[in-house]
Amino acid sequence: MAKLGFAMCVKSSIPLHHTPSSCSNSGSGAAITRRKSLIFTTSFLTTYFHWHQNQNQNRNLSTPPPAIAQQSDDLDQEETRVVQIFQETSSSVVYIKDIELAEIPKTSSGKNIGEDEDDNAKVEGTGSGFIWDKFGHIVTNYHVVSKLATDTSGLQRCKVYLVDSGGKRITREGKIVGFDPDYDLAVLKVDAVGSELKPVTISTSSALQVGQSCFAIGNPYGYENTLTTGVISGLGREIPSPNGRAIRGAIQTDAAINAGNSGGPLINSYGHVIGVNTATFTRRGSGMSSGVNFAIPIDTALRVVPTLIVYGIPYANRY
Amino acid sequence: MAKLGFAMCVKSSIPLHHTPSSCSNSGSGAAITRRKSLIFTTSFLTTYFHWHQNQNQNRNLSTPPPAIAQQSDDLDQEETRVVQIFQETSSSVVYIKDIELAEIPKTSSGKNIGEDEDDNAKVEGTGSGFIWDKFGHIVTNYHVVSKLATDTSGLQRCKVYLVDSGGKRITREGKIVGFDPDYDLAVLKVDAVGSELKPVTISTSSALQVGQSCFAIGNPYGYENTLTTGVISGLGREIPSPNGRAIRGAIQTDAAINAGNSGGPLINSYGHVIGVNTATFTRRGSGMSSGVNFAIPIDTALRVVPTLIVYGIPYANRY
Amino acid sequence: MAKLGFAMCVKSSIPLHHTPSSCSNSGSGAAITRRKSLIFTTSFLTTYFHWHQNQNQNRNLSTPPPAIAQQSDDLDQEETRVVQIFQETSSSVVYIKDIELAEIPKTSSGKNIGEDEDDNAKVEGTGSGFIWDKFGHIVTNYHVVSKLATDTSGLQRCKVYLVDSGGKRITREGKIVGFDPDYDLAVLKVDAVGSELKPVTISTSSALQVGQSCFAIGNPYGYENTLTTGVISGLGREIPSPNGRAIRGAIQTDAAINAGNSGGPLINSYGHVIGVNTATFTRRGSGMSSGVNFAIPIDTALRVVPTLIVYGIPYANRY
Repeated sequence: MAKLGFAMCVKSSIPLHHTPSSCSNSGSGAAITRRKSLIFTTSFLTTYFHWHQNQNQNRNLSTPPPAIAQQSDDLDQEETRVVQIFQETSSSVVYIKDIELAEIPKTSSGKNIGEDEDDNAKVEGTGSGFIWDKFGHIVTNYHVVSKLATDTSGLQRCKVYLVDSGGKRITREGKIVGFDPDYDLAVLKVDAVGSELKPVTISTSSALQVGQSCFAIGNPYGYENTLTTGVISGLGREIPSPNGRAIRGAIQTDAAINAGNSGGPLINSYGHVIGVNTATFTRRGSGMSSGVNFAIPIDTALRVVPTLIVYGIPYANRY
Repeated sequence: MAKLGFAMCVKSSIPLHHTPSSCSNSGSGAAITRRKSLIFTTSFLTTYFHWHQNQNQNRNLSTPPPAIAQQSDDLDQEETRVVQIFQETSSSVVYIKDIELAEIPKTSSGKNIGEDEDDNAKVEGTGSGFIWDKFGHIVTNYHVVSKLATDTSGLQRCKVYLVDSGGKRITREGKIVGFDPDYDLAVLKVDAVGSELKPVTISTSSALQVGQSCFAIGNPYGYENTLTTGVISGLGREIPSPNGRAIRGAIQTDAAINAGNSGGPLINSYGHVIGVNTATFTRRGSGMSSGVNFAIPIDTALRVVPTLIVYGIPYANRY
Repeated sequence: MAKLGFAMCVKSSIPLHHTPSSCSNSGSGAAITRRKSLIFTTSFLTTYFHWHQNQNQNRNLSTPPPAIAQQSDDLDQEETRVVQIFQETSSSVVYIKDIELAEIPKTSSGKNIGEDEDDNAKVEGTGSGFIWDKFGHIVTNYHVVSKLATDTSGLQRCKVYLVDSGGKRITREGKIVGFDPDYDLAVLKVDAVGSELKPVTISTSSALQVGQSCFAIGNPYGYENTLTTGVISGLGREIPSPNGRAIRGAIQTDAAINAGNSGGPLINSYGHVIGVNTATFTRRGSGMSSGVNFAIPIDTALRVVPTLIVYGIPYANRY
């Protein structure tokens, strides 16, 4: 039997291949993209046949064109619904990069560590999160930001990539507001003054039923704004928390959740958040989805997060 | 190239994290749970804002509430259908635990091995099965119960966790009625006198078509009553049986099937059984779903199981 | 952290268990099979109860029959649509086997290497492809046929298993027409004179939207004509090409893509090709689907393939 177990640490320290601009095509601008692309299709076909004709005239070659659909392939009702869920929700999902700054050598000539801090930094891992409110609070898993949360060296940083409500991509430093290892939850805050953020809409996890559709949005292996789909596979599960205690009431799903999805939202078919994607049952160390994946129920987050925002510490430790 | 191959032994000997009560939320009582939960949602919201108000009065803090969906998120027609399939079928699916009793030391003070046999027992593996008829016959894979079937020590036991038609959770010892390694099928019998069982409804596998929806219910990694979904990926496949022969006509699906799903039913969109989940093509030893998973066609079970119930041995060995 | 990375080489050198005739049940004849099977179901039930009755008369045993669905389980609209997509498209998908002939010993008595070349051959790997036009051009990934493309020994061969438009299964040798490692694309040609081929219908990848349904057809682990389903998970991705450069604009999907799927088509809900299944992000060496899978956009193939057909070399190297 291979080493199987929980991959709680559903975050990735893998060299990332994501393209910084990958988001623009797949985000909220897609509806517009579509119309453009239809035009493009037509002109493309024209070009193709034109090119082809020239080929034949000049070289007397006769390559037949492939069979190309003459009409645009409209989406059916169900597909349109899923596309809309993604378009309405994806800009509330953020990409979190943990960074460890290199220690500044004593002979440093006062170089400013800020915008270009990547030059001296090492990416420690990546995860996901979602915008909780318009004040810049970001909810994620504790294990995504545990190094920053427990940092004593002062070298840990956390970069948050997000999109404002106008579709503009922005990058901000995330500051720890509070965290609770018991529930594997943490709250970051980003300074987004002047940028209007689009918070998620929260549903409840108490009314969930096994079999209903669900959708995960996150950044598996660094691929930003990835959508995966499935159903609720089970309810009332127990998964281990980072400090070894049990998180009860977890939601099980067969929507693919891989390393890097941690902290991202699990949403229902209304685009409302029902859970925080947290763990997958997998071969140890691989972080690879097996089809047995878990999310912390949003009702737990609704209990924990406000306390973290107000006090910075878990409710249990308040006195 | 990594070691890839069939995981016939789709059962798990992993420390289980399932909660004994996990079934109650996700089983046949869900329709009732839903109504309750809607009420809960309302009172929950009240509590939340109330708590929040108090916070503000007492401490003059102003944490904004997140955006909470004001209405319950009703399921659409397709989701409702899948939820119903699960609710109508899940109580016919059982969880099978293979147990090896510790040898009773000679100095044993006559301790009764029965209800509390777990104290002296080791879980050898787990699998799934389904209720075949009202007489307590359970169909599963041979490889799930092979240790019990071939036991000469008298120390092998098989515990069956099931739900009666009233939704009450019961545990029974499963006795081997018959088995056929050629087709990887076995029949257990549980003593369920007084408990009304809910047998599955059998469909036929001969009318299946690639592309139609299918659903697996089972206990991957011990997570009870897990639902996973997909389509029929292929038909007429050949998979190896535990004794090395070929099982023909197997159904291929991309519904996730992991270690522990073995012996559970593959059902169609009517909740009727079309196959017995048996194998996954995966990295050797991991038992992890790859999306290329297999079930023995129910028509094969319909040929094999009645003979096993009547004679206890395969038809081929009858004379 | 386990070794994770791209499995570009999504082809399989695993001992195959596929049955040569597995295609006939699952192909375009399924609509007819269905009617037949309904009849079979009826006669089967009759037989079952008849047999059962005899049992009771002769042996006075009383095994109750299981609950068998009395009516055929008709597919709903959505299922029917997916079944039709598969039936209309699967005969355009081919199975590609790379073969290395054994060197003919000098003392060979003039044995004809042709029909029975398998006796002297070793299967090096397998992949998928699709019929581009009626002239026998097959599009696949470069990495599926790279050994043949770069062969200097003269011992590499490529066998293409396909179905003609009448549903007849044929096997042909595939000759390299052209290839472009930059885009991981290659074109083979098979001699199919007299056999009417059924080319795919090409859509465009420029109008795709995250969330729409997609379907992969191919031969994972050698299981022919396998259908897997999912949604578009992301667009505009970057994946490495076999020569180390980046392929831009790749389509990400959670439809399962495993070793052997490479070169097969990714299709939309109209059965039109939108991409060429190419890679999965997985544990190194396993070729196992993680739910993070990639296809080369069909618009790229539409640019590259005609040039390969006409000139045999990539457009970039034309002068």
